[in-house]
Amino acid sequence: MESPIRVLVLHGANLNLLGTREPGVYGSQTLADINAAIRAHAPTVGVTIVDCIQSNHEGVLIDAIHSARDTADAIVFNPGAFTHYSHAIADAVRAVSPAVVTIEVHLSNVHAREEFRRVSVIASACAGQIAGFGATSYLLGVSAAVSVVQASRSR
Amino acid sequence: MESPIRVLVLHGANLNLLGTREPGVYGSQTLADINAAIRAHAPTVGVTIVDCIQSNHEGVLIDAIHSARDTADAIVFNPGAFTHYSHAIADAVRAVSPAVVTIEVHLSNVHAREEFRRVSVIASACAGQIAGFGATSYLLGVSAAVSVVQASRSR
Amino acid sequence: MESPIRVLVLHGANLNLLGTREPGVYGSQTLADINAAIRAHAPTVGVTIVDCIQSNHEGVLIDAIHSARDTADAIVFNPGAFTHYSHAIADAVRAVSPAVVTIEVHLSNVHAREEFRRVSVIASACAGQIAGFGATSYLLGVSAAVSVVQASRSR
Amino acid sequence: MESPIRVLVLHGANLNLLGTREPGVYGSQTLADINAAIRAHAPTVGVTIVDCIQSNHEGVLIDAIHSARDTADAIVFNPGAFTHYSHAIADAVRAVSPAVVTIEVHLSNVHAREEFRRVSVIASACAGQIAGFGATSYLLGVSAAVSVVQASRSR
Amino acid sequence: MESPIRVLVLHGANLNLLGTREPGVYGSQTLADINAAIRAHAPTVGVTIVDCIQSNHEGVLIDAIHSARDTADAIVFNPGAFTHYSHAIADAVRAVSPAVVTIEVHLSNVHAREEFRRVSVIASACAGQIAGFGATSYLLGVSAAVSVVQASRSR
Amino acid sequence: MESPIRVLVLHGANLNLLGTREPGVYGSQTLADINAAIRAHAPTVGVTIVDCIQSNHEGVLIDAIHSARDTADAIVFNPGAFTHYSHAIADAVRAVSPAVVTIEVHLSNVHAREEFRRVSVIASACAGQIAGFGATSYLLGVSAAVSVVQASRSR
Amino acid sequence: MESPIRVLVLHGANLNLLGTREPGVYGSQTLADINAAIRAHAPTVGVTIVDCIQSNHEGVLIDAIHSARDTADAIVFNPGAFTHYSHAIADAVRAVSPAVVTIEVHLSNVHAREEFRRVSVIASACAGQIAGFGATSYLLGVSAAVSVVQASRSR
Amino acid sequence: MESPIRVLVLHGANLNLLGTREPGVYGSQTLADINAAIRAHAPTVGVTIVDCIQSNHEGVLIDAIHSARDTADAIVFNPGAFTHYSHAIADAVRAVSPAVVTIEVHLSNVHAREEFRRVSVIASACAGQIAGFGATSYLLGVSAAVSVVQASRSR
Amino acid sequence: MESPIRVLVLHGANLNLLGTREPGVYGSQTLADINAAIRAHAPTVGVTIVDCIQSNHEGVLIDAIHSARDTADAIVFNPGAFTHYSHAIADAVRAVSPAVVTIEVHLSNVHAREEFRRVSVIASACAGQIAGFGATSYLLGVSAAVSVVQASRSR
Amino acid sequence: MESPIRVLVLHGANLNLLGTREPGVYGSQTLADINAAIRAHAPTVGVTIVDCIQSNHEGVLIDAIHSARDTADAIVFNPGAFTHYSHAIADAVRAVSPAVVTIEVHLSNVHAREEFRRVSVIASACAGQIAGFGATSYLLGVSAAVSVVQASRSR
Amino acid sequence: MESPIRVLVLHGANLNLLGTREPGVYGSQTLADINAAIRAHAPTVGVTIVDCIQSNHEGVLIDAIHSARDTADAIVFNPGAFTHYSHAIADAVRAVSPAVVTIEVHLSNVHAREEFRRVSVIASACAGQIAGFGATSYLLGVSAAVSVVQASRSR
Amino acid sequence: MESPIRVLVLHGANLNLLGTREPGVYGSQTLADINAAIRAHAPTVGVTIVDCIQSNHEGVLIDAIHSARDTADAIVFNPGAFTHYSHAIADAVRAVSPAVVTIEVHLSNVHAREEFRRVSVIASACAGQIAGFGATSYLLGVSAAVSVVQASRSR
Repeated sequence: MESPIRVLVLHGANLNLLGTREPGVYGSQTLADINAAIRAHAPTVGVTIVDCIQSNHEGVLIDAIHSARDTADAIVFNPGAFTHYSHAIADAVRAVSPAVVTIEVHLSNVHAREEFRRVSVIASACAGQIAGFGATSYLLGVSAAVSVVQASRSR
Repeated sequence: MESPIRVLVLHGANLNLLGTREPGVYGSQTLADINAAIRAHAPTVGVTIVDCIQSNHEGVLIDAIHSARDTADAIVFNPGAFTHYSHAIADAVRAVSPAVVTIEVHLSNVHAREEFRRVSVIASACAGQIAGFGATSYLLGVSAAVSVVQASRSR
Repeated sequence: MESPIRVLVLHGANLNLLGTREPGVYGSQTLADINAAIRAHAPTVGVTIVDCIQSNHEGVLIDAIHSARDTADAIVFNPGAFTHYSHAIADAVRAVSPAVVTIEVHLSNVHAREEFRRVSVIASACAGQIAGFGATSYLLGVSAAVSVVQASRSR
Repeated sequence: MESPIRVLVLHGANLNLLGTREPGVYGSQTLADINAAIRAHAPTVGVTIVDCIQSNHEGVLIDAIHSARDTADAIVFNPGAFTHYSHAIADAVRAVSPAVVTIEVHLSNVHAREEFRRVSVIASACAGQIAGFGATSYLLGVSAAVSVVQASRSR
Repeated sequence: MESPIRVLVLHGANLNLLGTREPGVYGSQTLADINAAIRAHAPTVGVTIVDCIQSNHEGVLIDAIHSARDTADAIVFNPGAFTHYSHAIADAVRAVSPAVVTIEVHLSNVHAREEFRRVSVIASACAGQIAGFGATSYLLGVSAAVSVVQASRSR
Repeated sequence: MESPIRVLVLHGANLNLLGTREPGVYGSQTLADINAAIRAHAPTVGVTIVDCIQSNHEGVLIDAIHSARDTADAIVFNPGAFTHYSHAIADAVRAVSPAVVTIEVHLSNVHAREEFRRVSVIASACAGQIAGFGATSYLLGVSAAVSVVQASRSR
Repeated sequence: MESPIRVLVLHGANLNLLGTREPGVYGSQTLADINAAIRAHAPTVGVTIVDCIQSNHEGVLIDAIHSARDTADAIVFNPGAFTHYSHAIADAVRAVSPAVVTIEVHLSNVHAREEFRRVSVIASACAGQIAGFGATSYLLGVSAAVSVVQASRSR
Repeated sequence: MESPIRVLVLHGANLNLLGTREPGVYGSQTLADINAAIRAHAPTVGVTIVDCIQSNHEGVLIDAIHSARDTADAIVFNPGAFTHYSHAIADAVRAVSPAVVTIEVHLSNVHAREEFRRVSVIASACAGQIAGFGATSYLLGVSAAVSVVQASRSR
Repeated sequence: MESPIRVLVLHGANLNLLGTREPGVYGSQTLADINAAIRAHAPTVGVTIVDCIQSNHEGVLIDAIHSARDTADAIVFNPGAFTHYSHAIADAVRAVSPAVVTIEVHLSNVHAREEFRRVSVIASACAGQIAGFGATSYLLGVSAAVSVVQASRSR
Repeated sequence: MESPIRVLVLHGANLNLLGTREPGVYGSQTLADINAAIRAHAPTVGVTIVDCIQSNHEGVLIDAIHSARDTADAIVFNPGAFTHYSHAIADAVRAVSPAVVTIEVHLSNVHAREEFRRVSVIASACAGQIAGFGATSYLLGVSAAVSVVQASRSR
Repeated sequence: MESPIRVLVLHGANLNLLGTREPGVYGSQTLADINAAIRAHAPTVGVTIVDCIQSNHEGVLIDAIHSARDTADAIVFNPGAFTHYSHAIADAVRAVSPAVVTIEVHLSNVHAREEFRRVSVIASACAGQIAGFGATSYLLGVSAAVSVVQASRSR
Repeated sequence: MESPIRVLVLHGANLNLLGTREPGVYGSQTLADINAAIRAHAPTVGVTIVDCIQSNHEGVLIDAIHSARDTADAIVFNPGAFTHYSHAIADAVRAVSPAVVTIEVHLSNVHAREEFRRVSVIASACAGQIAGFGATSYLLGVSAAVSVVQASRSR
């Protein structure tokens, strides 16, 4: 229970444009801002951030999820629009589970937007979902990861 | 920004049975345990818990949501099974918004369960949703409320 | 045909907040204003208003519908969001029919709003529906009740 | 507010057969009877009936709606079966709006009949809908038109 | 039972192009050929053809159906593509029924073609349907009309 | 063109009860009456009836359809309720086609009855369909068979 | 009311394997055990069991239902998987009704199993349905048959 | 196995109107009549009726189900129209299971009525379902409860 | 390849109101402006405009499409709202094809608007579709017609 | 592992017509040819073919599946069109499993044909599926059976 | 308005095979041919082609769309099969809009092909769509881009 | 017919984790084990394995399929989760067909798993499908490839 919890932060498609893309929906923070906030928050809850990766390539995200088996206890993952159709990413999350726990996070409240954004093909492979709180969604995701990993360690 | 954030905690149908009902799905903590944990967590993030209410009566929940206009800045709300069909509760949440912000929380990852649990008719009226982390979902919900209320106060 | 027509006015979920809730959609009149307007209009068309009841509790509305068998010839009923899912209310309306005639009214044009508001599970139990004219919907509902009750009396 | 409100009454497909067609559903009044009742009612609520037009031709109805821009403040419109599929009529109503307000009326309670009659492709283009009160639906429609036009004049 | 049976033959949209339009689907006979064949067949089964009307105008077809109340016992009707969406024509058929019986006929087997051609919104208003036999569908339709009218006369 | 046309008449499930089963829907003629009427009609249109078979067993009907390859030019077939789900019968009809032409007939207007009766999984395998004319549907079916077989012989 | 009620017990597809097939779902009693229990129970409620028939052949079941017109007042019927698609069996039940009343029974609670088992195309043809009580479903079915037959006899 | 089986009888929405409401559908017995019949039948099968409760309030029914944990072995439950949408009641039934077994009963054959009545969101939480036998459905439900409770006791 | 390409321009329902109707969606140009722009553009791409016709009458449009067989090589056609339901117009386009090629054009991007506007029942009968470029959609349509007609001439 | 693997080959509806039926889809080999090829292939992979049965009768196929419990380790089964609706056959396959393993085979690639052929109600009861390779599908099915049976024997 | 309009041409999955892949559907021009035609056409309408990129990698296309923010005013984009499911590409188009305008083009008339090709998840993010004119679709797309960019510049 | 058949083996998303991922579903063999088994089996059926490629990148798989035009006669392809949504991969398979034949294989019986796994958007582009036999599915796929390629060579 004492060893720090290792978390991989994963950002999916188009999140590299954060701060420039539809700020009314996604806020004005850049991805660098968010990563910095995550890195600042992590040690306060006993978490080491092993890496923050963004990619617009589904395959790169799958490879990163696979590699987490060796480097991380949990993934805090905002899949972007891949959320709604990438069964391959969902299977990758399943494949590394339960050794690696995945927390799905979204900046916006996807449940209050277009129809297609209300369906997550990835959710059923994750431990839980946090949506609607902007960059704070990630920070809550890191805290949630702590809770889930500690619970499984104490089992 | 200095005044404490007032949060009403609302529990919907069947949550009074927590700890006895399907512990494999919902955990072994009782509702009293969860309320205690919330009350312990709140001051650490600058939150005053104005009340913790549970009811199996949809109308009681609606009345409580209405009353929050005078007493709370945010509601951390686990609607239980009302999540999936109570448009009346959803309209109540809309009616007090944006003065009162609502955060939808669920103990289990509703997106990974039966088909009917994947639809929330209430989600589109809320600021965001947190699901899958047991009692921790509530604590994250309280923290999320802080983030949302502070953002709207600073606007 | 000479005896006055007795009408019960019934308001469903969240209508107690009228005037404060989304005035762009529902107008700025309070429920008291609307009830006063109905009471002023009623005698001009030969109607006695037996009561004006609002409740956020589905069961209270069902009980009120049942009680109308003894006190009213017609109900002018805005079920609020119960319109879209309360088969129990619809069965209550059916149960007192045709002795008590029910007129469904809505402040807004529900047919021009969100998908879920276009379906009324209650409509098929009512004599007719009036939607979209704000408080005037109720006044037209009272007049419609006169027409329906007189037609059935003359049969 | 003083100038009289000009209303065009429009009857769609098959309404010329009223009184002969399925009287159990549509009543025994002829279209001439209904028009006479409308013309008698109109002055009592400050309305001038500019014309009463019936056509089985969708195009004729569209042309009439267009022409209302010069002659009417409101249309009281029973589209008959065009209600359920004529997007062209719906677009015509949208095209003259908000200068000309349209009130959709139906003799029968379309919401309690065959499945296809429960969908109105025209409703979302109208100010509101009145259904189920026989010829009285038209009279209520004229009164509703007064309410809507006065509200927009006073804005 | 002795008086001849009067039949109106009605052809809907695009049937004026018969013989030139997709002969693989609709055959090479022109509409004039078909009308001639019908007129030749009619007397052999005790039928007088009161008229053969073709129109691409939905309203003209509705007017013709209405007028049949005075002139015909039955309509042999190929609505063309109106079959699949014209609820107004269906209501016209209902409005003249049962005084005037309508037999729906199609040249091609609509049940074996594109999805949209398998739905007839008019069928439920007709006595029966005959599809797939080219021009012969009309001749069978005339014979069917005799059967239906005689049955109703002998009731 | 001179050789007589050989027609097999096939009756599906429950048609042995004709005359006793729901006479309001299916008429009061027995199956023997209908077979006699068909046999009387056939020679007047140049048809030899090779057999009239009824079975409540799907497999017996399939075997009969197969055997028609040696004995018949056409089948006049009322599949009864098998119409709505027996893809095996539909494939049997396809398997003997085009050597043997199948005409689908129904006593009642299936398109005006329960939802499930409006779908024929067999229709797309047949030359055409005749529905709604009671026993006359079969006679028209025999005549239709003549038309289809002659057309294919003259090709 | 004095004459004994004659009941035919009918078992559909695969029920001959009872006791060997998925005992977790269907229990360990054999069909012979169940038939014996039914025969033991029948006289205690004034019922004569005319026969207990099992078949995997849809046509045999239809023939048995037809034959019940001469031998039984009611059928206690577990159609097995035919429940979900055999419109032919449903029509057979309709064809002998109301002279012969059919009670649909199921060993397991079909409403709590796979999606396809929740739809019964036969239910609407039956007097009622009993599901979920193992062999007891049949015994309750026999008692229910008594109730329905006595009610119809006393009418 | 010797201790008597304790059964709670629960009636949902609108069942207090039994005998007055649509007697063609629901029969002419009052709820008091039915409760009396249940209480008369219970001892004959070794059952003690702990209470008979009716409510139009969903929350009252949920509370009653919860309280059954201390007082009953089984619930014989006719949820009325709540059957079709109250996931909260369904979750209450799940929450007390398997300690308390629930038997769903309906007066009418819900599977043969309107589309919405064919879906029970509660069924999958119950041991089984009995529908279509009027007041007898309750008596059969009591007997079924005996069977289910005895089976679980003997395990 | 040298003879000029003859193009008929066809405008469907409500397009006569262009410039006055919802300019935010449809722009401020009138139909006369657009026709003038088309006539100016045509000779620059070797096209003769044979006529520009607008009608709110489906039948008039069908007749115009039929007449194009004698006068035009291509139709540039904005069907307006008929796009979404007029199978009769679609069949007219099919009937004159491939002799006359039809290019479907829309002022607005119909694929980004209301659900019903995303379905074109006419598209499958046309050579192609151009949507979203205001009046320019027509000019592009004329150019596209040149491309399609030249390709078919050179075949 | 040494005892030979016993395989029953089962052919469903219409497969007796192989070689004559739609050879473009199903090839020109007869069923006898295919059975001969299977019998030639079987010994090369250590399989004894216990029987090759074809039937157009669903019940005969169910009986054959049941009998396989005593005679076979595996069934190589092409259900023909029963694939798409026979839940009774699917339950038969489930009932003999896992003692008898079933391999579903199809001559054509059912996934590339009509919509209804893409759904197999039987697939979920089988070990696996092979489709699209003509008679070779059966040979591969026999080899697959060896693999599945050996795997289960070695467990 | 004077500065040239910069257009990026983007080709999605499998378009590198043009000329070899299903020429009946996609024509015999290679991608190099099309790019050459675009480059020849561009200057005649005042457009500079900044690049022509083809990729079978969704991520490469997203990166290219992102990079267009610095290099292009518009994208003429044929997404190939990504059209039908890549919400990630659609979000990329939204993310660079309105600074970069995207015109969706297709070689074939996707609205007249398989069902899945009729849905574009990308269309709602684009200014408009052009489909069905082979390589000419791209040229029209370039011209359309000029129209859209000029309109936005003059705003 | 003598030249060896060249087969490319292609593995899609997440198959690199075989042996570690959900062994209960996918078995304990690694991908290297499977490739070795394929390479051992190939020469026994006259096949040369040109390469075994695995990728989690959709674009890499598409490129590999394209390259097969020069190097392979057939592809034995397990697309993993891409099976269920990658229309781009499906179009790639279509683009190289019929020169290169594709056989779709799956380790598990996808037809017996989650709903989304029962739909293959790729199947209609392939020669056939083999699912459910673990690593043996690949070996059967190689044998099937031989059969399909030989059949096309002998044509």
